[in-house]
Amino acid sequence: MDDAHKIRIAVLGASGYTGAELLRLLLRHPAAEIVALTAEKNAGQPAGAVLPHLAFENLPPLVKTGAVDWKDVDLAFGCLPHGTSQEVIAAIPKSVRVVDLSADFRLAGIHDYATWYGHPHRAPELQKDAVYGLTEIYRDRVKGARLVANPGCYPTSAQLPLIPLLKARLIATDDIIIDSKSGVTGAGREVKQANLYAEVAEGISAYGIASHRHTPEIEQGLSEAAGKEIKVNFTPHLMPMNRGILTTIYVKLASGKTADDLRKELNRFYVKEPFVKVLPTDALGPATRYVRGSNGCGIGVYADRLPGRAILVSVLDNLVKGASGQAVQNMNVMFGLPETAGLEGLALFP
Amino acid sequence: MDDAHKIRIAVLGASGYTGAELLRLLLRHPAAEIVALTAEKNAGQPAGAVLPHLAFENLPPLVKTGAVDWKDVDLAFGCLPHGTSQEVIAAIPKSVRVVDLSADFRLAGIHDYATWYGHPHRAPELQKDAVYGLTEIYRDRVKGARLVANPGCYPTSAQLPLIPLLKARLIATDDIIIDSKSGVTGAGREVKQANLYAEVAEGISAYGIASHRHTPEIEQGLSEAAGKEIKVNFTPHLMPMNRGILTTIYVKLASGKTADDLRKELNRFYVKEPFVKVLPTDALGPATRYVRGSNGCGIGVYADRLPGRAILVSVLDNLVKGASGQAVQNMNVMFGLPETAGLEGLALFP
Amino acid sequence: MDDAHKIRIAVLGASGYTGAELLRLLLRHPAAEIVALTAEKNAGQPAGAVLPHLAFENLPPLVKTGAVDWKDVDLAFGCLPHGTSQEVIAAIPKSVRVVDLSADFRLAGIHDYATWYGHPHRAPELQKDAVYGLTEIYRDRVKGARLVANPGCYPTSAQLPLIPLLKARLIATDDIIIDSKSGVTGAGREVKQANLYAEVAEGISAYGIASHRHTPEIEQGLSEAAGKEIKVNFTPHLMPMNRGILTTIYVKLASGKTADDLRKELNRFYVKEPFVKVLPTDALGPATRYVRGSNGCGIGVYADRLPGRAILVSVLDNLVKGASGQAVQNMNVMFGLPETAGLEGLALFP
Amino acid sequence: MDDAHKIRIAVLGASGYTGAELLRLLLRHPAAEIVALTAEKNAGQPAGAVLPHLAFENLPPLVKTGAVDWKDVDLAFGCLPHGTSQEVIAAIPKSVRVVDLSADFRLAGIHDYATWYGHPHRAPELQKDAVYGLTEIYRDRVKGARLVANPGCYPTSAQLPLIPLLKARLIATDDIIIDSKSGVTGAGREVKQANLYAEVAEGISAYGIASHRHTPEIEQGLSEAAGKEIKVNFTPHLMPMNRGILTTIYVKLASGKTADDLRKELNRFYVKEPFVKVLPTDALGPATRYVRGSNGCGIGVYADRLPGRAILVSVLDNLVKGASGQAVQNMNVMFGLPETAGLEGLALFP
Repeated sequence: MDDAHKIRIAVLGASGYTGAELLRLLLRHPAAEIVALTAEKNAGQPAGAVLPHLAFENLPPLVKTGAVDWKDVDLAFGCLPHGTSQEVIAAIPKSVRVVDLSADFRLAGIHDYATWYGHPHRAPELQKDAVYGLTEIYRDRVKGARLVANPGCYPTSAQLPLIPLLKARLIATDDIIIDSKSGVTGAGREVKQANLYAEVAEGISAYGIASHRHTPEIEQGLSEAAGKEIKVNFTPHLMPMNRGILTTIYVKLASGKTADDLRKELNRFYVKEPFVKVLPTDALGPATRYVRGSNGCGIGVYADRLPGRAILVSVLDNLVKGASGQAVQNMNVMFGLPETAGLEGLALFP
Repeated sequence: MDDAHKIRIAVLGASGYTGAELLRLLLRHPAAEIVALTAEKNAGQPAGAVLPHLAFENLPPLVKTGAVDWKDVDLAFGCLPHGTSQEVIAAIPKSVRVVDLSADFRLAGIHDYATWYGHPHRAPELQKDAVYGLTEIYRDRVKGARLVANPGCYPTSAQLPLIPLLKARLIATDDIIIDSKSGVTGAGREVKQANLYAEVAEGISAYGIASHRHTPEIEQGLSEAAGKEIKVNFTPHLMPMNRGILTTIYVKLASGKTADDLRKELNRFYVKEPFVKVLPTDALGPATRYVRGSNGCGIGVYADRLPGRAILVSVLDNLVKGASGQAVQNMNVMFGLPETAGLEGLALFP
Repeated sequence: MDDAHKIRIAVLGASGYTGAELLRLLLRHPAAEIVALTAEKNAGQPAGAVLPHLAFENLPPLVKTGAVDWKDVDLAFGCLPHGTSQEVIAAIPKSVRVVDLSADFRLAGIHDYATWYGHPHRAPELQKDAVYGLTEIYRDRVKGARLVANPGCYPTSAQLPLIPLLKARLIATDDIIIDSKSGVTGAGREVKQANLYAEVAEGISAYGIASHRHTPEIEQGLSEAAGKEIKVNFTPHLMPMNRGILTTIYVKLASGKTADDLRKELNRFYVKEPFVKVLPTDALGPATRYVRGSNGCGIGVYADRLPGRAILVSVLDNLVKGASGQAVQNMNVMFGLPETAGLEGLALFP
Repeated sequence: MDDAHKIRIAVLGASGYTGAELLRLLLRHPAAEIVALTAEKNAGQPAGAVLPHLAFENLPPLVKTGAVDWKDVDLAFGCLPHGTSQEVIAAIPKSVRVVDLSADFRLAGIHDYATWYGHPHRAPELQKDAVYGLTEIYRDRVKGARLVANPGCYPTSAQLPLIPLLKARLIATDDIIIDSKSGVTGAGREVKQANLYAEVAEGISAYGIASHRHTPEIEQGLSEAAGKEIKVNFTPHLMPMNRGILTTIYVKLASGKTADDLRKELNRFYVKEPFVKVLPTDALGPATRYVRGSNGCGIGVYADRLPGRAILVSVLDNLVKGASGQAVQNMNVMFGLPETAGLEGLALFP
């Protein structure tokens, strides 16, 4: 692509893991030109100082957000912590389109945001314009959006298998149990004791039981699909791996339906999708290692030993399909590019 | 203790992980004397050749089972693969008591064994004498038993939280979902591709979905506790850690009951137990790293976001409370020793 | 590229880790067409059965070597175990060019092969034609080669820093100590106890001390560079990570030379190389995680506390620059393609 | 032991990893009574709040150092950061004996401390009384010491193999290269980016090359053994495991000596030691996993391919023999107890 027609991109909060992953993808994207990188604490340093694996790439230096010249920018990716993102994005000129990877614009209800995040939303009028960017489901809305709220990693892993089944009325709406197991980068690069190597390696723990902030985001998507308000059980676990989420979902079948019916519907729904793959019945159980580093999401469907129930298992890389990969996918949709542009990379196994 | 009164012990199948863990515990047990170690493939070698961490300990050499002089043995621990164990143990003189760590004698129904293990049981008459050794529950039966079937790791982690609640009629019997996450040693030291480092590290996978052989063992214990036949969903996952199982259990509350009622009952039931601990409400979520290397089992109880439901989380070390530690605990009960003898070791954290 | 002009490729031994990594790279290579995959044990299965991460890619089925129609093949990559490779490759028509990733054709001296591998070489005449494919050093020879012996992972990590320094006479030839730390995939996908997760995780061990088979390969390259026979100390260590080698090299400086002189020479030598990067003095210490999944090799140079000595540290991904990436790099050279074709992927961090 | 005669112990800085490990050992030590735990930031909390694996043990609450009643204390263990330790310990009454696990009192020369730690020593007069507690070497000095400076983890792993060889004049003093690989707990529980799981897992890095602060500590011990000032190369590496150090040492043999001579001397020197074991020639290479959780140190000796040189490899658990275990060993010596008291625990493998 002619450089003159490339998308000029700013990455806000480039020194964390989702920022790093965006850069990995965008540096090899045929239509992307990275024109600005911000990092409040590390402003003034070259990107390679905080992201040594990119030290030999041609990247602009890290600057404070205030130093970005927005006239040169077509698209901003927000990789800032929630709570911070909303204010920063509110200050960006409307001529710049935005894909925000934080949680700030994901909940349509301002009130829900305040309940789960503990403070009133600081850009409520902007929230109204935000489109929830679960690409396979909301592709049409994303296309024309100025502000896309990129989904959370857990919500992506839960909604992709469940939304088609709820739309097709194949499962009960009052008995959805979502048990997720996540690698550590899901918590970002924030320096806190719980994320130290020796606190994570060789162990697993449950956390945020029945109270994790991704719960309302999951419920919002499922409720829209079902046409009624849904509450779910969502129990996340932290385990020792860099990347990956495996989500095991326990559902009650609609009357007369079977696990095969669920698999068929998911197959039908996703058959043309390049990134979402329904596993055949004879495949090995889903494993995160088979999507590591790729934008893929694998879904398996299994009969339950309990009559009238079924089990869904989804796997994805939380930094790719669960964050930066889906963000690039949304960019592709917003700018009329092939949806797979820059996302063709295969999983790194082992 | 006077050496003349020590329990003379043979470990059958000493070269695997449960065998190694037994030796770790028995070598420091005040009343244990290890008199024979068997290992068919490695017979003739010193124990240190296959268990280098014990190379400087005083241990008998590895021999074939046929070379054991049973007159010198009070107790045999069976650490053989299932299917093999039943024949070997059938050939041991009745004067020798046995704690078998394989699955061979766990299912009371010979027919169930054949169904789940794919061949007729080879020692059906011996099966009748076997006592299921979930110590906290069946302590009285274990005391006088000649043959104790030591519980599986997953079943221990599922039954310890569930049995008291089923006995007290606090939860529904038709809607028990058990989602387990296990470290790799649960699969033993068998050399197969799925257990290679590069197939396990940095990933998680579901396996044996709705078909794992520990399912009937779990159901057997729960059914006895409930006084009726129970079927459960049991979904195991393999994750990258040496030791540990975390089991998340989703239950429906009996009418009018709350998560607090469950926690109270578990507290009441286990209050005097040295190894089973119910976490207070303000504790961090249960984590396997806090029981690694110890015989402890921690249980947390949480209200569910779905009305009328609750969440139980248990953690244990699959090689200790889930195998060799519980085996020693059973030995202590069988020989009238303090139940904690040789099992006082604290968790190794980190 | 027009499909009619793509390089038609057979991968021999496609079910192991180097085979898998080749497929990851070749499936996205603009000039590669994969026409045949062999796997003796798994012949008859689809590639996705043994490489589930590629299950949704368009790949030929696994066949036995004898079933390959060589008329359709321009280039064969050999990913077979050493000892096997030489016989299989000897049977391939001369019209097919070969990049062999095994150790079989790396040692120019047939006698050296017999000494280190314990049996006479089975294709001695073919050995004469083999070109050692350390691309940055032997690019000109590789260009016209029919058979390229792709370097071992350890030798690549040791020779890239050392060869320029020996050529420039900057270091002593009789005091080179090479301490390497490797991830587990360096040992291949062979199913053996030492590679089980629980034998590797949470530990490190030295192995093959002063006797590892990569030693003569290292010495061969260094000797050619120095113009005299060189012996080295090479001590490998196995550590818990999937990918990566870090090699720390302790050298004695030539009279009057400093660590800075070494760094300058390496900079001069590699300044135009796309894959080999000399770290600036103010960079963080070299780390394998910054090259994971990429074809890069990073080299740091440090003054020693011992006078007259210096320390070199190199990092690379053993499956990429240490195996399949360098193999593709050699293919690019052999077929007149841009050397970076298909190898532009950035490191996956974290 | 009668409680009235137990050693009354205060642990200063109990919330870190060495503090935690001390508690694990002391809680099962037959002669130890823990009477005070300090933790400046977490004062007021129960120990179980920061060390959940000890939540069910009988431990005093965390208090500030100023709240300790020193009349009740026989022995204080210092687990504070270096720089802090010296001031706190200077304020403890002389009636209390001290084992300090920080680096503060390890360097006999006040000037050396200032050079390497960047500030003048704050308790120079106390430094004079300090005894360096490498137990096997300085046991006699430790016995009567009031203040024992417990050795660093790296220095323990380097000095145990080297000191006997230097004393016996078996190796050259001007060519000692020490390449160490350490698990993450060596860096303590300090919350910093470099110790995050995702910065450590699946990688290895060299750091502190030729400048690590343990260098002068190593040189001090070796110089005393050699009877002359020695400088060494010491290059540490950080790798993904919780516990363990493997140190590979490259030495030049004294004229006419062989690797066998070295092994024999080490055997002679350590033959009666319960914790230091010289591996026989036919043993597997030393591996940290075989000493994990134990107070053992294994040493292997190997001929080098380079003539006139040899290779030493030592392994230990950095939190046990490299810190808290050796501290308890020193306590045992100081109080006339059997040196193995409380330290009999075997390695946890896997």
